Amino acid sequence: MGNTVKLQPSERVDDLLTHELKIIQSSEVFSFSMDAVLLARFASVPARGRIMDLCTGNGVVPLLLSTRTKADIDGLEIQSRLAEMASRSVQLNGLQERVTIMEGDLKTFQPRPERPYYELVTVNPPYMPIQTGDTKVNTHQALARHEVACTLEDVIRAGSRLLRTGGKMAMVHRPSRLTDMMALMRQYRLEPKRIRFVHPRAGTEANMVLIEAARDGKPDVRLLPPLIVYNEGNEYCEELMDIYYGQASQLKDG
Amino acid sequence: MGNTVKLQPSERVDDLLTHELKIIQSSEVFSFSMDAVLLARFASVPARGRIMDLCTGNGVVPLLLSTRTKADIDGLEIQSRLAEMASRSVQLNGLQERVTIMEGDLKTFQPRPERPYYELVTVNPPYMPIQTGDTKVNTHQALARHEVACTLEDVIRAGSRLLRTGGKMAMVHRPSRLTDMMALMRQYRLEPKRIRFVHPRAGTEANMVLIEAARDGKPDVRLLPPLIVYNEGNEYCEELMDIYYGQASQLKDG
Repeated sequence: MGNTVKLQPSERVDDLLTHELKIIQSSEVFSFSMDAVLLARFASVPARGRIMDLCTGNGVVPLLLSTRTKADIDGLEIQSRLAEMASRSVQLNGLQERVTIMEGDLKTFQPRPERPYYELVTVNPPYMPIQTGDTKVNTHQALARHEVACTLEDVIRAGSRLLRTGGKMAMVHRPSRLTDMMALMRQYRLEPKRIRFVHPRAGTEANMVLIEAARDGKPDVRLLPPLIVYNEGNEYCEELMDIYYGQASQLKDG
Repeated sequence: MGNTVKLQPSERVDDLLTHELKIIQSSEVFSFSMDAVLLARFASVPARGRIMDLCTGNGVVPLLLSTRTKADIDGLEIQSRLAEMASRSVQLNGLQERVTIMEGDLKTFQPRPERPYYELVTVNPPYMPIQTGDTKVNTHQALARHEVACTLEDVIRAGSRLLRTGGKMAMVHRPSRLTDMMALMRQYRLEPKRIRFVHPRAGTEANMVLIEAARDGKPDVRLLPPLIVYNEGNEYCEELMDIYYGQASQLKDG
């Protein structure tokens, strides 16, 4: 596996955790964050079938998921600059057979009619509502961070539309939006089933929430153990180290 | 303070944590649990005004709250046997001036017309949905544990009706009902603002959730640090010890 691809100015190739995957990043355009890494580990990944990653950015979630499953993975991205960057990362890793990056708008995206439903939809959506008077909304980073191109409701509606009955939608977001997420998920027949909060340190409030819902599922939520990022010595706790650097070995085991 | 009251068969008088309060309990009728203690500590208690504790049982929450505030506290209980027991505990502690136990149904309860609204509503409601074919629903314990006399929606509707704008509703419940709670709260104009999950041990799923909502509040939730009950040595962790045995000193400080 592995191909040679061209880099644009400002782009660099980073190792993606497992020391086997590579990803094209750019501090001016898009770099992935811990949120995407935790989402890719949190989601209940089907062994086969089809997975859709909405708001895929530079394709970090599809790349990480590809190490956990033999499923076909689609990534949808509204910004052509990012979709193109993600496609080159797929090529770079020789994953063209299983990972497909598409440029498109999740509000209007239509899957192939012969295979209209997915087993899993993942999404690390823009977190920030648009501020009144916010003028910096046309940069790549603003589109990825603010609800310019899509709102939380757009994202949840799209996930519901793309999932088969019993299919899962896994999302990472800010805890402050928890009520919005849960109420909208239920409204769109996505019943929350597993929730995990991420706290920077023991004794601090959560700053991230991972949530997975089942299409037409029965109401019943499990609240998983909290994930604490840093230990008392300001180092990543054991579980984070395992997520960041143990992914490769876990994949070989699975 | 402190009076002498008569005990019924099976009843006993227990110390209520602070070593200053006493409470009448009965293993055959009703004994309070950790849930009520954590709720009484978690709630945002107004310094003055009026507090309502729904499903008050043997009055444990009003008794504990009385040590944190000068507010007038009402407790509403549908079972006359429990309401009467709670009233005697109020007398036992000489709190008749500030704590009033009322026998009544929260679905039809009408507050005094001259003071119709409360600053805080607390509730430790029955957790268990009624099972089909459940025949043991007429005991005191079954009424306190199962949604026989009131459903989760009845409880949340009552809280919303009794609160002034900006008033708080604090509830303890099982995490499996989180989506129901949050969706119903929003439906009845109670916006979740503070949530805390209780985990029996580090690394285990949550088995209890404390949630506080504001009447007509702005959507924005804070996810407080998780509360871990037992440490690795199977003893109460420091915070629990403080909640159980440090309540008196905290109250004097406040």
